[in-house]
Amino acid sequence: MQPSGEQRNRPARPAPERAALARELARRVGEDSILWTDDTLLPYDVDGFTLAKFPPDLVVLPTTTAQVTDVLVFARAHGLPVTARGAGTGLAGGALAEEGGILLVTARMDRVLEVDVSNRFAVVQPGVVNAHLSERVAPHGLHYAPDPSSQMASTLGGNAATNAGGPHCLKYGQTHQHMRALTLVLADGSVVEAGSRALDPPGLNLVGVTVGSEGTFGVVTELVVGLVPRPEAVRTFLAVFDDVTSAGAAVTAIVGRGIVPAALEMLDHLTIVAVEPYVHLGLPLDAGAVLLVELDGPAAGMDRRAGEVHALCREAGARSIREAKDEAERLLLWKARKGAFGAMGRLASGFYVMDGVVPRTRLPEVLARIEQISAEQDLRIANVFHAGDGNLHPNVLYDVDDPDSVARAWRASERILEACVELGGSLSGEHGIGNEKRDLMGLAFAEDDLAAMAALRRAFDPEGRLNPRKMLPLRPGCGEGLPRPGLAAVAAGLSPDGEGPWI
Amino acid sequence: MQPSGEQRNRPARPAPERAALARELARRVGEDSILWTDDTLLPYDVDGFTLAKFPPDLVVLPTTTAQVTDVLVFARAHGLPVTARGAGTGLAGGALAEEGGILLVTARMDRVLEVDVSNRFAVVQPGVVNAHLSERVAPHGLHYAPDPSSQMASTLGGNAATNAGGPHCLKYGQTHQHMRALTLVLADGSVVEAGSRALDPPGLNLVGVTVGSEGTFGVVTELVVGLVPRPEAVRTFLAVFDDVTSAGAAVTAIVGRGIVPAALEMLDHLTIVAVEPYVHLGLPLDAGAVLLVELDGPAAGMDRRAGEVHALCREAGARSIREAKDEAERLLLWKARKGAFGAMGRLASGFYVMDGVVPRTRLPEVLARIEQISAEQDLRIANVFHAGDGNLHPNVLYDVDDPDSVARAWRASERILEACVELGGSLSGEHGIGNEKRDLMGLAFAEDDLAAMAALRRAFDPEGRLNPRKMLPLRPGCGEGLPRPGLAAVAAGLSPDGEGPWI
Repeated sequence: MQPSGEQRNRPARPAPERAALARELARRVGEDSILWTDDTLLPYDVDGFTLAKFPPDLVVLPTTTAQVTDVLVFARAHGLPVTARGAGTGLAGGALAEEGGILLVTARMDRVLEVDVSNRFAVVQPGVVNAHLSERVAPHGLHYAPDPSSQMASTLGGNAATNAGGPHCLKYGQTHQHMRALTLVLADGSVVEAGSRALDPPGLNLVGVTVGSEGTFGVVTELVVGLVPRPEAVRTFLAVFDDVTSAGAAVTAIVGRGIVPAALEMLDHLTIVAVEPYVHLGLPLDAGAVLLVELDGPAAGMDRRAGEVHALCREAGARSIREAKDEAERLLLWKARKGAFGAMGRLASGFYVMDGVVPRTRLPEVLARIEQISAEQDLRIANVFHAGDGNLHPNVLYDVDDPDSVARAWRASERILEACVELGGSLSGEHGIGNEKRDLMGLAFAEDDLAAMAALRRAFDPEGRLNPRKMLPLRPGCGEGLPRPGLAAVAAGLSPDGEGPWI
Repeated sequence: MQPSGEQRNRPARPAPERAALARELARRVGEDSILWTDDTLLPYDVDGFTLAKFPPDLVVLPTTTAQVTDVLVFARAHGLPVTARGAGTGLAGGALAEEGGILLVTARMDRVLEVDVSNRFAVVQPGVVNAHLSERVAPHGLHYAPDPSSQMASTLGGNAATNAGGPHCLKYGQTHQHMRALTLVLADGSVVEAGSRALDPPGLNLVGVTVGSEGTFGVVTELVVGLVPRPEAVRTFLAVFDDVTSAGAAVTAIVGRGIVPAALEMLDHLTIVAVEPYVHLGLPLDAGAVLLVELDGPAAGMDRRAGEVHALCREAGARSIREAKDEAERLLLWKARKGAFGAMGRLASGFYVMDGVVPRTRLPEVLARIEQISAEQDLRIANVFHAGDGNLHPNVLYDVDDPDSVARAWRASERILEACVELGGSLSGEHGIGNEKRDLMGLAFAEDDLAAMAALRRAFDPEGRLNPRKMLPLRPGCGEGLPRPGLAAVAAGLSPDGEGPWI
């Protein structure tokens, strides 16, 4: 999982070289848009995946599509890689400038350009913060549905890059289901308008394949995102169980009844121990699991559906069920979930937030495996789940000052992802692949599958200069070759020396 | 790629040549799987887009992924194009063997391989008929949600190729939202497994971009499709209005109230005149529009939601509202909608089912434009809508024996699609591009957008041998922009000589 040795922590180009590049680029985009000195670059060598650091040579903060084109044309002329970055909250290292070059930060592209209330979409720049869009359209009774836990900081451009999920994606779908159109600047500076403001556009699904491509296809400079009416009624419950098995039984019962909750989240014992001192909800510290269930929809019939959820939780063995009386209490219950990752800091000096998926019915099995891995590696692992769709977030707790503990955390993470794949699941539900899981892609995909992805990527970025070394595993060494001549040749054309990344 | 002119409506290869190819291919896939004589090829030179005919040289009916690989390797060795075909119900000519070669028919790949009730998916071969899958899983309380009007005949492979829609896609989403994984055989015979049985797989979204690619990326030989619980309660209403404006107002009111109906379909006056003698519902023949509204979901609260829909239709001016008392009556009400296209045969010897999209709020404008076009071209046009998502199906009625009437039908169709694009919409909601709209793509997409699609397609099929001449416009000649010869020219085989297709 660790990136190959020689490229890790490579220093940036010498300052005079960076200064010269900055001067030249300043003529196109203005001096105020460029950072190049050591001190100003410092915050940009790391993102939410804190285990790897790569300094960029230049940081550019454009404000318009035309400026992004300028930056890409400049980068091409100088053979510089370009990595786009939103808020830098990504947990998979997708915004690391692994080969240096230009880090294109979208923070200043933060304008909501248009809101069409009747047709329920907004046109935004990529640097708009997820939660800000929902705040902006709230007076119209609308909101933007995907709600990653990072939503107070993460941007819509970054959300699109990773196809971000969130608790409410169980009912409303992930980011790709809410993206209608994208403006994409390719590596050669050309501008592609993908999709349409109307629903169901024809032609190849450029939007669907660009969402989740982690900045390897182009730089998204404008997004048309769908907006969803705020539900008439919302009911939120927190049910406490003795163990995850009985909480899991409640999940199965709720889903089996044909109820589609707005969210269905689970925290395990260790997570409860972490969050209770932070939220003061009075959660019993000996509880084995907590289930957060939210129902939304028309007010009509809500009482009956809420009663059903209550009954199903009781039947599954819930110790107690607390329902939010008002919006303030609802936000408090949610704080237990959305603040869970932050609260891990109370338990250990380092925690590694993982992201795996299994078919929903195999959650108990994967939990048993995680318990076993926890014992083997002698590390505590706290689990948070989007239980409704089988997406789990194990938090591997380790000691940042103990290299052996760090190494065991890596091993634990790898074992957990292997278990997910073995149980019919996959490597990532919503955080992306980035740097973190690039070399694990072979666990989930065969060579032909990866070759198809590489060919797709090359279709957009033939020189492989956009966010290099992300998503796809490093190319096999010389002589190993690739099994299939067609796509293999395509992929090989990108890294003729056999030492570069797959693409 | 061959130049176009001489190949259009060209006859199949001479029989002895076909016989020789058939003999050789028979050694790989068996004699019983191959058709090559004139009489047996006859049914395969046309699909649901009856305005164009192209005979294949061979028809092959494989039963396994391995046989599909055999066919593609054979085709590659002989430089033959390959076009995949499901049931041949497509309305855009996507299954026409435009350059002859092999028509790969999936009709015998009709097995449901696995049904996972707990995790709600089925693994099927591409030749499984849409409705058959829902019948098969009905005992488990599940169904496959996308329901094109062709669902009694059309196959899941064809549905995936066109990203098929259907009335219930308003609530449940189009085909691409229900495809979890695909097995795709590429032009070189290699096999790509895209997606995962678990939700939200990582990596580039190969499934999302393959769905809707109309067989230009590869041949899908296995699909993992999501299944949806059958709703606890269903209520179906047919409301009669004096005109489409008031029916449209009801649509706006229902959607504006935050109600998400399972379906929201509209028929205009001329459609009512066509369907009433067929369904005997007692629809008043002077009615201006009929709205079919279906609600589904939990039984709790359904009465109140049904009451709201009633009241909103009344407020918008409904003359009468009929609610289905039981499943038999519900199916009868649906017959008015799903049988609408077939009923057009009562009004004219020829009818051209079109497919356009506009933002929902612009339906009244596009209807006014269609009325104007109808007058200009002196042709009756009957309209059926998925009103909830702005997808319209104008049926242009013409006289098949009058060449002038046929030409006016072409012109009308082109004007209608231009109007859709002008109003912020697009060329197709759910039928695909195929042969029919290939040369209109320039209306909706700029050159850079089309170039991105072409690059994507080349990534999968570098030689352009899979379903050639589909979806993307013909390549511009030297010094010209994107030519748009118009539908009439396309149908008449008038593409400029010497110009190959875009890819």
